[in-house]
Amino acid sequence: MLRSMATSSGSTATPVVGIVGGGQLARMMYQAAIPLGLRPRIMAEHADDAAALVAADVTIGSPTSASDLRAFAARCDVLTFDHELVDAEALDQLQRSGHAIRPSATTVRLAQDKRRQRAEFSQLGLPVPVYREIERWSDLDAFGQEQGWPVVAKVGRGGYDGRGVWVLRDQEEAATLAASLADREITLLVERWVPIERELATLVARRPSGEMVVYPIVETVQRHGMCHEVVAPAPISAAVSAKAERLARTVAESSGLVGMLALELFLTGDQIVINEIAARPHNSGHLTIEGAETSQFEQHLRAVLDWPLGRTALTAPAVAMVNVIGADASDSGDPAARRHEALTIPGVHLHLYGKAYRAGRKLGHVTALGETIDEARDRARRAASALAGESIQGMSA
Amino acid sequence: MLRSMATSSGSTATPVVGIVGGGQLARMMYQAAIPLGLRPRIMAEHADDAAALVAADVTIGSPTSASDLRAFAARCDVLTFDHELVDAEALDQLQRSGHAIRPSATTVRLAQDKRRQRAEFSQLGLPVPVYREIERWSDLDAFGQEQGWPVVAKVGRGGYDGRGVWVLRDQEEAATLAASLADREITLLVERWVPIERELATLVARRPSGEMVVYPIVETVQRHGMCHEVVAPAPISAAVSAKAERLARTVAESSGLVGMLALELFLTGDQIVINEIAARPHNSGHLTIEGAETSQFEQHLRAVLDWPLGRTALTAPAVAMVNVIGADASDSGDPAARRHEALTIPGVHLHLYGKAYRAGRKLGHVTALGETIDEARDRARRAASALAGESIQGMSA
Repeated sequence: MLRSMATSSGSTATPVVGIVGGGQLARMMYQAAIPLGLRPRIMAEHADDAAALVAADVTIGSPTSASDLRAFAARCDVLTFDHELVDAEALDQLQRSGHAIRPSATTVRLAQDKRRQRAEFSQLGLPVPVYREIERWSDLDAFGQEQGWPVVAKVGRGGYDGRGVWVLRDQEEAATLAASLADREITLLVERWVPIERELATLVARRPSGEMVVYPIVETVQRHGMCHEVVAPAPISAAVSAKAERLARTVAESSGLVGMLALELFLTGDQIVINEIAARPHNSGHLTIEGAETSQFEQHLRAVLDWPLGRTALTAPAVAMVNVIGADASDSGDPAARRHEALTIPGVHLHLYGKAYRAGRKLGHVTALGETIDEARDRARRAASALAGESIQGMSA
Repeated sequence: MLRSMATSSGSTATPVVGIVGGGQLARMMYQAAIPLGLRPRIMAEHADDAAALVAADVTIGSPTSASDLRAFAARCDVLTFDHELVDAEALDQLQRSGHAIRPSATTVRLAQDKRRQRAEFSQLGLPVPVYREIERWSDLDAFGQEQGWPVVAKVGRGGYDGRGVWVLRDQEEAATLAASLADREITLLVERWVPIERELATLVARRPSGEMVVYPIVETVQRHGMCHEVVAPAPISAAVSAKAERLARTVAESSGLVGMLALELFLTGDQIVINEIAARPHNSGHLTIEGAETSQFEQHLRAVLDWPLGRTALTAPAVAMVNVIGADASDSGDPAARRHEALTIPGVHLHLYGKAYRAGRKLGHVTALGETIDEARDRARRAASALAGESIQGMSA
C-alpha cells in the first residue's frame, strides 16, 4: 500500500513517518509517536525548531525546496506536515512517483488557499460567508458599497492565526490597506462582516480506508486575531452540533482527506458558516491530548498510516485550553518562578514548546479538565497567565 | 541549589536532566519531559536502547563506569536513573563534588540491595517477612527447618522481576539451588513463605523540599515471576489502604527519597508486609500515564527538579495495565496485523518500547480505563495479548 514502506523501514512492522516542518505541531506529533513505537523523522528549517530540539532524527531542509522534499521523502514511508506552507507542486511530483503524501498535494493546496476553499465549498453547496475574490483594488471598494461596511479582507494564501485578516470599516480603511499592500504579490478575498456569536471548530480524522471519526465540537476564542482559548464541549445546541459534524464529514470526504482536519466555523444565530480549514492537527485540538480518549496527534499518525482510528469522547465533563503567549518582556519576571507558580495550580497540564521567550510569541499551552467549563477555564487561564509572565491583575482586568 | 545548573543550561529556566540508562523507563520519562519544555540527556549502553531510539541527545556509556558517570554528570544539572544497577560509589563521589544526584547514592544503594532494605525497614519497626541473611548454605537449610518449608530464597542484589527469586519446597530443592549457585559471588537472603492474598504497590513521590504525594494503591499480578498486570484502585479495605500509604511515606522520608519510589507489598489477611522497593518510576505505575492526573514519569521529573508535585487522583473509576510480553515466536504472526487488531479494541492506550520482538521480552504495555476493573482489564488483556502474538484462545485458557 505504501510503496516505499518495505525499503525505508526494512519491514512492514514499523513504517517511517516523515514530518515536514519542525514546529510545535511536529513536536507534539513526535511525543504521540513514542508510545506507538514509531520513530518519525523531522525535516525542520532550523536546528532549534520546537520539534528539532527533541527528535532523534532531524534533517535540516526547506519545505519550499523540491529537492529537499524529494531527498527527505526518499527516506520515509509516508510524508505528513506540521504546516501547509509547502511546495505543493513538488508534492504532486512525489505522489506521481509513488510516494505516500498524506494529506495529499490536493488537500495541501486546498488548505493553503482560502479562495480555493470558498470556491470549492460553495460549489458543494456548503455555507460560507458572502465573499468575492479581489482582482483589483476597486473590487474591494465595490464589495463594501454593495454589501455594506464593515467588510473583512483576507489574504488568500499564507495568512494564518489572524495574520493577513483585516476588518475594514469604510472606504478610507480599504484605501489605506490597498496602499500598504500595493507592491506585494498576494491574492485577496473579501467577505461580508457577520456578527459572530461564537467561533467553533470541528476536528475530524479520516484514513485512506475511508474510516472517519469526529471530535466533540469545540468553541475557540480569539485574542489579537490569534486563537487564544478553546473549550469543549462547545455550549451549542444539539442541532448546531450535528450540523457542524455533518459539515466536517462532507469536507473531509469531498477533499479526500487523510489525517486530521480542523474546520473553523462561525456561529451566527443558529446558522453556521465555514471560515477556513487546516488539514493537520490544529490549535483548536490541543485539548484532546488530555481531554479526549485519543489525542489529535496520535489520531493524525494513525490516519496517515491507515491504522484503525481511536475514540474521540471527552475524558471529562469540561475541558479548557489556553495558549501561553509571551507577555511584554517588561513584566515577564523569572521564568523558573513562573513555572513553579503554574505547577502549583491543581489539575493543569503544561505544554511548553521549548521556544525562547519573546513578547507575543506562542510559547506553549495549558489544558485543564473540570466539572464545568468555568472551573476548567479558570485554572487553565491562571496557569497560562503565570507562564506567560502576565501579572494576575492584568489577567482579571 | 543545583550547583551546576547555571553552567550546563546557561540559565536557571530550563535545567538539564541527565538520565542514566536507556530502557523503557527512560523512554517514558523522555516522553513526559517534552511537554514540560525539558530536553533530557540520556546515557544509554547501546544506541538501540528504547530511550536512545527516540531521544535527541544520547551519550553511550556504562552505568558501572565511574568515568562515564563523571563525564555525563559534568554535562547535566541533575542526574537521575532508569534502573539501580549503577556504581553507587561513583555516585557518592559525584555528590561529594557537588553534583545533584537524585535519588541520592544512599537511596540507590538501598534500592540495589534487598538485604539492606530488610535490615533498615526492620530497624524502623516496619513490617517485613520473617527473613535471615544467608552467610553459608547451611543457613538456608537451618532456616527451612526452623520456620518450616517452603521458604523463599532471594538474591540480595541485582535480581528483579522474578529473576533471582526461588521458592524452595524442601531440603532437597535448597541443596540443588546451593549447588547451582556455588560458584557465583552473590548475596542471598531467605524468608518465610507467606500465603499471599494479593500483591500491592504504593507509589510515592518526594522532592527535596519535603513535599510528598502518594498515588492510590494498586494491585499487581505476577506471571512467571514478572509483573504482568496492574489494576487501580486495588480492591482492599480503607484501613489496609491507609496502612500502605503510611508505610510508603515512612520509607520515603526515612530514606531521604527524591523522585518516585514504588513500595511492593504482600497482603496476607489484613496484614501487609514490605517485599521490596524501587527508587524510580516502576512497572506498577505505568497506568498513571492515562490513569492518574499526573503520570509517574512527569512526577519523577518534577520531584528530581524540586518542582511542585502534581495531583495523583485516578482519572477513571478503574484502570488496568497489562504488559506486552513476546509470545512464542511460533504463533506470533504478522506484527502489523497484530497492531491493527489491538487498535480496534476501543479505549486502549498502546505503549510500545521500540524493541525487536523476542519471546519472553517485555515489549510494551497497554492501559485501559473503565467503569469497573473487570471491564478495563478485559480490554487491556485483549489488546496486550494481540500485540504479544498470543492466540486469543491461549489467553482465555
